[in-house]
Amino acid sequence: MHPQLSVSRRTRSTPFTSRVEAAGVKAYTVYNHMLLATMFESYEADYWHLCEHVQVWDVSCERQVEIQGSDAYRLVQLMTPRDLSKAKVGRCFYLPLCDTDGTMINDPIAIKLAEDHWWLSIADSDVMLWAKGLATGMQLDVKVSEPDVWPVAVQGPKAEQLMSRVFGAQVADIKFFQICPLTYQGPNGPVSFQVARSGWSKQGGFEIYVDDVAAGQHMWDELFSQGADLQVRAGCPNLFERIESGLFSLGNDMGYNTTPIEAGLTQYLDLSADIDSLSLTALRDQNPSKRLMGLLLDSPSNITDNAITIDGIVAGEITSLCRSPRYGVYLAFVLCHLDVLGNNLAVEVSTSSGTNMGKLCELPFDFAALGLEPIK
Amino acid sequence: MHPQLSVSRRTRSTPFTSRVEAAGVKAYTVYNHMLLATMFESYEADYWHLCEHVQVWDVSCERQVEIQGSDAYRLVQLMTPRDLSKAKVGRCFYLPLCDTDGTMINDPIAIKLAEDHWWLSIADSDVMLWAKGLATGMQLDVKVSEPDVWPVAVQGPKAEQLMSRVFGAQVADIKFFQICPLTYQGPNGPVSFQVARSGWSKQGGFEIYVDDVAAGQHMWDELFSQGADLQVRAGCPNLFERIESGLFSLGNDMGYNTTPIEAGLTQYLDLSADIDSLSLTALRDQNPSKRLMGLLLDSPSNITDNAITIDGIVAGEITSLCRSPRYGVYLAFVLCHLDVLGNNLAVEVSTSSGTNMGKLCELPFDFAALGLEPIK
Repeated sequence: MHPQLSVSRRTRSTPFTSRVEAAGVKAYTVYNHMLLATMFESYEADYWHLCEHVQVWDVSCERQVEIQGSDAYRLVQLMTPRDLSKAKVGRCFYLPLCDTDGTMINDPIAIKLAEDHWWLSIADSDVMLWAKGLATGMQLDVKVSEPDVWPVAVQGPKAEQLMSRVFGAQVADIKFFQICPLTYQGPNGPVSFQVARSGWSKQGGFEIYVDDVAAGQHMWDELFSQGADLQVRAGCPNLFERIESGLFSLGNDMGYNTTPIEAGLTQYLDLSADIDSLSLTALRDQNPSKRLMGLLLDSPSNITDNAITIDGIVAGEITSLCRSPRYGVYLAFVLCHLDVLGNNLAVEVSTSSGTNMGKLCELPFDFAALGLEPIK
Repeated sequence: MHPQLSVSRRTRSTPFTSRVEAAGVKAYTVYNHMLLATMFESYEADYWHLCEHVQVWDVSCERQVEIQGSDAYRLVQLMTPRDLSKAKVGRCFYLPLCDTDGTMINDPIAIKLAEDHWWLSIADSDVMLWAKGLATGMQLDVKVSEPDVWPVAVQGPKAEQLMSRVFGAQVADIKFFQICPLTYQGPNGPVSFQVARSGWSKQGGFEIYVDDVAAGQHMWDELFSQGADLQVRAGCPNLFERIESGLFSLGNDMGYNTTPIEAGLTQYLDLSADIDSLSLTALRDQNPSKRLMGLLLDSPSNITDNAITIDGIVAGEITSLCRSPRYGVYLAFVLCHLDVLGNNLAVEVSTSSGTNMGKLCELPFDFAALGLEPIK
């Protein structure tokens, strides 16, 4: 199915949309009511380029929910079961946000800019309304807003080299999930952009939180002029790369009816912490009936049904799927029904050549342990 | 710009998507994280068909936010500055939802199903998060959820005739914005669907709140088999028709920074009512600086800039625009800056043949008063 997207004021364009168009974008999705490119040349060509060179991504759709005021920490902590009581300024935190039932609202990167000033760099749901609703209902002393910030990601193995040319050698000192203001020489003088070592790939790179349109567009163009010899290209989060890397997508792999325990995000939960969080009680009591797992299928045929089965009984649904360019097999995420699954890891997958046997595994994929070697 | 849309599990398909595809949909938008068709043959062909015959629309993306419990009325009233204290069961209400600043959160159709049971049939923002945040923060006795309901609209001058064939003569008794349960003979026996006389066009018609997939798909097919002689077609909200009819679109014509006063929705506000509503104080005090108005431009050239000006100074932005098939002129909605506009109604519009003079007017358009006669 390759329908067209009707672009309107509601599917917001960004300061970089004209550049993304000029770079030959082939398809978009709509994410946080905003355009997000999904493909330039092809998923596979984009994948190899991302893994070998450097790409500049317009991820303006990673909207910031700004929470500012004396109750800012209190509100952020209420929204997440991850302990933020010792969080330091200038750090980023992957945060499951959950409601009182323990189910997911969003999974942003939280950025602590100051003691009373946080950004939530969100996935695709209106976290601003959730935060504002809580703050209004609890009469918290915070201002919740969506500031004019349009993140640009620079991703790939040559990202640090390119960023250093544009922002200077200090780029190398930024640690993973650290964020700091860097000066950029814009067309109207110097500006300061928050820059983090982060991004929605496992190929390394940075995210620049652009809050000045003219300087941001100038920076975009400079990343391309300075990166010509690095084979820099416009890119976007890549479906194949994110599945190989075990990166989940809210709305695809987890949603309003999934808890972070079911999604396997337990390392981001502090269920025994002494914190004031809305979801702690529900999550402490949860006895998960579902679990997000990896699926590996070595088959030349197409997968024709999202249901995976055991002896014909549905044991899970595929939530994201690709044929791995690197390993030549199907890789998928599957939301498994634990009561049907039991201890089985061998499952039936429907393909165009009949039922094939696939293998479930923990995530992220451990390719060596799975006996897979790169074919390219 | 005609890019492709990448369809994923996150851009949710509906029980009717395969039928919409089979009917030849040409373009989609994403609305409440769900596919919504925007065009079948062309905007103009779809327009004339809608105005002359009958169409069946998959508007599943009009998600229901269900609010149920002893505090249900209290929560709905808190969210809107419209007085619902005398609202009757079985009625629909167009509701601006506003935050404490008086700015818009959404503009749903509220449906009162029972004293303690409301649906908000929402435009494109996650009202569930706003309602749930308020309810959680205020510890209200309500359950807020998104039930599995997929509305289908039957719109056009022959809608009542078609609906009567499928649901019986009682359809004719349903008054505008009234809703009642009607029995439908589904493939697995009778089911009950809520049916309202409503819909996002001014051509008349109904919305059926399908909550049973098999029965809903059977009903869809029966609407087509029973309507063959009425020239029934699959359709969708039509850009041209909604502009001509003065129907606003959240995210296009109004948004988080617009109040319902600025959007001209004053007939839906009860600012002097003795009700407990979050936005009343802010709206009572508001001195609007913006105003949504109509624009009429008689020009063969294309409009090339969304800014409209007076003596070169920006006096407003076009938020939605079409060339009216019926009147042969450009019709637009413009968010005007009242300080620049003053009492002027004549404004400059940039077109491919230079600056043209357009005329501002009140909304909805009063074509006779504007001296316009149908050209077709």
